[in-house]
Amino acid sequence: MTNETYMQPWIELEELIKKGNLEHLSRFLENISPAETARAVSRLDEEHRVKLLALLGPQDAANVLLDLPEQQAADLIEEISPEEAATIMNNMPGGDQADILADLESSNAEAILDAMPKQRSKKTRQLLQYPADSAGGIMSVEYLAYSEAMTVDEVLEDLQAHKEEYSDYEVQYAYITSSKGRLRGVLRMRDLILLRRGQQVSSIMITNPIHVRDDTPLEDLIQLFSQHPFLGFPVINKAGHLVGIVRRIQVMEASGRRAEKSFLEASGIIGGEEFRSMPFAHRSFRRLSWLSINIVLNVIAASVIAFYQETLAMVIALAVFLPIISDMSGCSGNQSVAVSIRELTLGLIKPYEVARVLLKETGIGVVNGLILGMLLGAVAAFWQNNFYLGLVVGGALATNTVVAVSLGGAIPLILKWARMDPALASSPILTTVTDMCGFFLALSLATACLPLLS
Amino acid sequence: MTNETYMQPWIELEELIKKGNLEHLSRFLENISPAETARAVSRLDEEHRVKLLALLGPQDAANVLLDLPEQQAADLIEEISPEEAATIMNNMPGGDQADILADLESSNAEAILDAMPKQRSKKTRQLLQYPADSAGGIMSVEYLAYSEAMTVDEVLEDLQAHKEEYSDYEVQYAYITSSKGRLRGVLRMRDLILLRRGQQVSSIMITNPIHVRDDTPLEDLIQLFSQHPFLGFPVINKAGHLVGIVRRIQVMEASGRRAEKSFLEASGIIGGEEFRSMPFAHRSFRRLSWLSINIVLNVIAASVIAFYQETLAMVIALAVFLPIISDMSGCSGNQSVAVSIRELTLGLIKPYEVARVLLKETGIGVVNGLILGMLLGAVAAFWQNNFYLGLVVGGALATNTVVAVSLGGAIPLILKWARMDPALASSPILTTVTDMCGFFLALSLATACLPLLS
Repeated sequence: MTNETYMQPWIELEELIKKGNLEHLSRFLENISPAETARAVSRLDEEHRVKLLALLGPQDAANVLLDLPEQQAADLIEEISPEEAATIMNNMPGGDQADILADLESSNAEAILDAMPKQRSKKTRQLLQYPADSAGGIMSVEYLAYSEAMTVDEVLEDLQAHKEEYSDYEVQYAYITSSKGRLRGVLRMRDLILLRRGQQVSSIMITNPIHVRDDTPLEDLIQLFSQHPFLGFPVINKAGHLVGIVRRIQVMEASGRRAEKSFLEASGIIGGEEFRSMPFAHRSFRRLSWLSINIVLNVIAASVIAFYQETLAMVIALAVFLPIISDMSGCSGNQSVAVSIRELTLGLIKPYEVARVLLKETGIGVVNGLILGMLLGAVAAFWQNNFYLGLVVGGALATNTVVAVSLGGAIPLILKWARMDPALASSPILTTVTDMCGFFLALSLATACLPLLS
Repeated sequence: MTNETYMQPWIELEELIKKGNLEHLSRFLENISPAETARAVSRLDEEHRVKLLALLGPQDAANVLLDLPEQQAADLIEEISPEEAATIMNNMPGGDQADILADLESSNAEAILDAMPKQRSKKTRQLLQYPADSAGGIMSVEYLAYSEAMTVDEVLEDLQAHKEEYSDYEVQYAYITSSKGRLRGVLRMRDLILLRRGQQVSSIMITNPIHVRDDTPLEDLIQLFSQHPFLGFPVINKAGHLVGIVRRIQVMEASGRRAEKSFLEASGIIGGEEFRSMPFAHRSFRRLSWLSINIVLNVIAASVIAFYQETLAMVIALAVFLPIISDMSGCSGNQSVAVSIRELTLGLIKPYEVARVLLKETGIGVVNGLILGMLLGAVAAFWQNNFYLGLVVGGALATNTVVAVSLGGAIPLILKWARMDPALASSPILTTVTDMCGFFLALSLATACLPLLS
């Protein structure tokens, strides 16, 4: 499935763009996977990227954009004129169109919307109102809806007549509405197989179908799909009108994107998204904005050491162990952080259950702290041939591990409770506190038994 | 949807188990979500958990187990007798049955398999042969298959007759096989709506359907589903026999589980799974096995400091900056690690493209290193009123940031290339190298210009 043994696909792609042969170009793009398309397009320079979109024609250009990660597609859209962008984006499903527009500078998005047909831009503007993590932000606006007054015959005729067009939809259900667009029921397509043709659809539809409001948050959608086997739910607005369909697959994709975002945020990528195809200055600046917070926190934490310079000068061996205590406490604490974030995501703990988590983690902290403390204490004692140095180093690590493990378990719950993002903030808060505490424990213990150490 | 304002659900569940009223118990479990079921069951003590399964009857007990994360279900199965376990597990889909058995001690799994009906245990043993991340390990074995000799009429009759039973399946396709079980074609259920009843199914099926071999790895399945709009693919074995169906939803779930596993592994949870309901000793031991590797690596890295004790004793202020240099380099490097892991997952970079990543990251490392180095250097210079101390501290951090950022980008690719798990190993390798390098840079620079510092 990969072309590793052939020419690098982006070199081939660039050559095809230079030659400008549309047929070869289309065939090439049909034969590589979306991931490879994304990889190849992201390595073209701006000139060739723009030329590619112009060559392809709106439908194929739209397909290429849909293969790219959203942010990359948005970056590419900003390189062409609003009129060209509008023509291409008219060939995308409404949901994808809105997702990409949401990633643009707002003036660019406005220019593109202005260049679209009125009715389309109105619908898209409505979609742009929804938060990305709500039913309205996730749903698709392409679905089958019939009036409750229609018969099975009429529905079958419509299906037959629009066979080609509908094959793009995932047609398992059709939605039945009143003449004013209010949701009345759901028709299972497979029920059509077994039913007589004269009947009115309203007599065989499932009435009072489970539905969601357009402002339902992602968490509730995940829960709803885990409780029901259905592939999709109709989405209604405040007035009860059917506005879209939220599908299981879309909810899973949204939840997957959120998990990826958490992983990147936990590693210090603010915003949870970076590709190496992004502009250099942008990447550098975003990483720096995170690092500069951390360097301030680090200086604050390390300032504890400055207060004990005299002790440190007399027991210089301690300087070897301070980074170890800092790093090991961070490791122990981050294990608890990860377990808490996971259990919060799965709904196994609630943000108010801090006491329960502390109870569960403190035990682990004590056992692991004692073992790690004895290990590091032994290293210190043997190396300097001083039992008391071992006691100071081991005691500080053991105590600090208890602090780190319990605090690491509790911090994500507290942040979640305060409606902050646990993935982004847990680790810096944890390590700052445990660094300060660890340095203080080691150096104050050492000061207290200074005569025994030097 | 939550019961937060009422009694805690597990307390209510425990009371219901004590009373032993099956009807109330079933109604209670029907009304709470899978996540809440998992949360409530995990907080019962062993006695009540076992009693719950015994009370419920096999079908309801199976449903409760399917609501739990796999590892938790396996732990609960080990608390009851193999005969009871077999009776309950016969009420699960074959794929789930195999997943739970795979998480048991192998002697326990054997005992349960022996207590199952012969035909079922044979099928399950076959499923257990497949790696968890392959088509065979992911697929379901419940699907509709008809012989190529049947007519549309006969298929419709069968559908009508087994309406209840099939409603559990997601019936979008039926698979058509030869009399020996070889895959011949796929029948779209919605095509049945529009076709005449006398026809043979083989005349309307899609021939040469896209299919996958049972040993296809998860990565290839993700790619395949991203290239095609279908909801599922038939899975065949080496001999060409239809053995199962791998569905889009299952592939997405498997990919989500892997992302969660990566996140936990990156935080030092070996095996990528821990719940606070697991036995204490087990949790403590698994965390320790990771921490003990790290403490050894930390001692090795910090031993660099020991070689420069004389320098350190003369410029004690340096001891304040060593943990900062170590921590900041770790932060900068882990940003690159996360971006590389993500791009590898999305297929945007290949493991052999180390040179490209180094090129992209070194620039970021130089810019961010210079800025961070100037910041920390300024702090050092002003605090000790010594320009040269600032130069040493800032220079060491700047240089080490370049090393950390480039290395952080490259390590996941190298590990992937060596078929190791980037999520688990990248961070410890990175921080060990950057710690050693950072300590060496700061202390050797200080030694070189010692007269200027003290």
